[in-house]
Amino acid sequence: MKVFIAGIDGYLGWSLARHLAGRGADISGADRFLRRAWVEEMGSGSVVPIAPMPERLDAFRSRFGRDLRFFEGDLCDYRFVRDALADVRPDAVVHLGEMPSAPYSMIDVDHCVFTHQNNVIGTLNVLYAMREACPDAHLLKLGTMGEYGTPNLDIPEGFFTVDYRGRTDTLPFPRQAGSWYHWTKVHDSNNVMFACRLWGLAATDIMQGVVFGTGLDPTEARLNTRFDIDQAFGTTINRFCAQAVIGHALTPYGSGHQRRGFLPLADSMACLTLALDHPPGEGEYRVLNQFQEVYSVTELAEKVRAVGNRKGLDVTIQPLENPRVEREDHHYNPDHQGLRDLGYEPTTDVETELGRVLDDLTDHRGEILKRQSVFVPDIRWNAARRPVSAQPVADDAMDKSR
Amino acid sequence: MKVFIAGIDGYLGWSLARHLAGRGADISGADRFLRRAWVEEMGSGSVVPIAPMPERLDAFRSRFGRDLRFFEGDLCDYRFVRDALADVRPDAVVHLGEMPSAPYSMIDVDHCVFTHQNNVIGTLNVLYAMREACPDAHLLKLGTMGEYGTPNLDIPEGFFTVDYRGRTDTLPFPRQAGSWYHWTKVHDSNNVMFACRLWGLAATDIMQGVVFGTGLDPTEARLNTRFDIDQAFGTTINRFCAQAVIGHALTPYGSGHQRRGFLPLADSMACLTLALDHPPGEGEYRVLNQFQEVYSVTELAEKVRAVGNRKGLDVTIQPLENPRVEREDHHYNPDHQGLRDLGYEPTTDVETELGRVLDDLTDHRGEILKRQSVFVPDIRWNAARRPVSAQPVADDAMDKSR
Repeated sequence: MKVFIAGIDGYLGWSLARHLAGRGADISGADRFLRRAWVEEMGSGSVVPIAPMPERLDAFRSRFGRDLRFFEGDLCDYRFVRDALADVRPDAVVHLGEMPSAPYSMIDVDHCVFTHQNNVIGTLNVLYAMREACPDAHLLKLGTMGEYGTPNLDIPEGFFTVDYRGRTDTLPFPRQAGSWYHWTKVHDSNNVMFACRLWGLAATDIMQGVVFGTGLDPTEARLNTRFDIDQAFGTTINRFCAQAVIGHALTPYGSGHQRRGFLPLADSMACLTLALDHPPGEGEYRVLNQFQEVYSVTELAEKVRAVGNRKGLDVTIQPLENPRVEREDHHYNPDHQGLRDLGYEPTTDVETELGRVLDDLTDHRGEILKRQSVFVPDIRWNAARRPVSAQPVADDAMDKSR
Repeated sequence: MKVFIAGIDGYLGWSLARHLAGRGADISGADRFLRRAWVEEMGSGSVVPIAPMPERLDAFRSRFGRDLRFFEGDLCDYRFVRDALADVRPDAVVHLGEMPSAPYSMIDVDHCVFTHQNNVIGTLNVLYAMREACPDAHLLKLGTMGEYGTPNLDIPEGFFTVDYRGRTDTLPFPRQAGSWYHWTKVHDSNNVMFACRLWGLAATDIMQGVVFGTGLDPTEARLNTRFDIDQAFGTTINRFCAQAVIGHALTPYGSGHQRRGFLPLADSMACLTLALDHPPGEGEYRVLNQFQEVYSVTELAEKVRAVGNRKGLDVTIQPLENPRVEREDHHYNPDHQGLRDLGYEPTTDVETELGRVLDDLTDHRGEILKRQSVFVPDIRWNAARRPVSAQPVADDAMDKSR
């Protein structure tokens, strides 16, 4: 299978390139290295050192015995995307080439506008380029569980059948995103759905939960994927694990009652592979919710503390004022049956995976220590930028978080 | 009341400036004259001649005894929008500054991307500029009934309360737009809804039906608003009326069974004024469906024929192949109670209004004759550009259209 990965230099993109190559796929991809620049703009960098692309490509060739075809360029440049796809003629296009951070999109009007430009225009170009260059290829696009928000209903996979005033229809489940970034993903989902209806494109839209984990190669450091810990590009569990290994308090925001779906990086790779192995039919727009388990932020902090303590780390928890505008106490029961029906079985339990992350990060304590100032967020949802303050743990936090 | 109109040079924008000024409002506005350029790009032009902006402003001053403050510039330039709003400090911002044509957005990838850029980024800039310059002003944004598409359910005004698996919530009604243009309006509606939640902005989102009518000033031609008849910027009824006055067959697309909400230009002005006179509360995102009556395209063609015949015009109907991808036979029962609750009463019946349009256009037959080649559409939803062919009228067209 020929797979083209847009955003191949990123956390998921590079991991997927290795994972699929290991299964024999022919990999190509594009990137403009914006993720490296954004994290630098946040005053941080990957705490697992990552190689420049030429070195990644060398190491890839040595490991897999064949080349990865790399195209350097911008998805916002239509001709670039079309020419790359026309050249490769892939069986599947995995679209991971978006700006993936809610806080980054909330900094100010320029970052909000940039996020819309980059994500929405990039996705439109991918759609038109596929129509022109490889209309029969399968588009596997990364969405996010954050598109749904936190309605007071169970969350189906993309669509639900609803009765209203005596009539029935199956409709897109209403989206209520909580950041400009998440809204751009909603806009993209809507545009992909429309392209399927319009041109018969076959697409899978993955509503992904929060991914955590280190993507270290056991023997070749140049094949490692990045690991971020800053407020914008470090996800919750990755931040907690980095905090734990240097003795920094874990810093959940607000009450910590917010519930989300999480999954290990290895499971994310397994799920994307399953979707690629089982493409939808012509004109089908398939939505799959992708996460292993739902936890509250407090539960996760407690898990990291427990696993850390077993490893002899002294882990404490210090909640911070929540810089976001979000519901902290809410119903959360999303479906995630589609990928199980395709054969997904969780590869590991969360505790085992957390232990592995803590072990992997131990070698990188120096890099984390250097960057620990990035643990205090200052990007607020009200567009004022000011560091948050510590706040006491609510007595009932543990009870309410269930 | 100080009202700032974004897109003040357009069909609705110029009409609204005159209408509100006549009621004593202090009017300012912005435009970059893109509508004039887009219609030219379609090989057409307003068949009611319109004056350049300096002449419009002269005539406005003579008629209303005061200046209209005009800002020439692009909503995609944040600093321009913010500076204009900071200068004016309006009580209300009416956002009509979007590319309003479905076919135009469907021409090719460049037009699709332009429509997203122009509409989505322009609206984000209006939101941020209001937050910075006039956070207490009322945003009156023009959406479209086309955002809802044609679900097999009644269409509420923006939100509906739904039971699902034993739980209940009030959610945004799912949108299923039928063109890239309509999707940009969905994206904008979502972004405006989010800004209200985020910053406490007060906004009214008007889901407007198809507007028709001539906005002629009885004594001063320089105050007339534009009237378009091309496939992209001429709306259905305006095209039918222009066809009728030159003896060109009316050209509904496909079966003509497609049902939509319509309203006369005068009623659109009355409704926008009512919304301005009754702003929503802080943080409220209010959706109002705005149309007078639902008709099928065939019914409208028949109405134009009947009214034209009474005026001695020989009106025939020649259906054309439908260049769009759309459901032609569908349920359509949208609510439109909100504006009635604010006091809206239809100013006229559709037949009377059609008669007026036919009379008004009689003076402009020469301009229509010059441009009649634009009546045959060639922009297809499948991204191939090729003129459509004539097709026979289905025998049952009249029955099924009810």
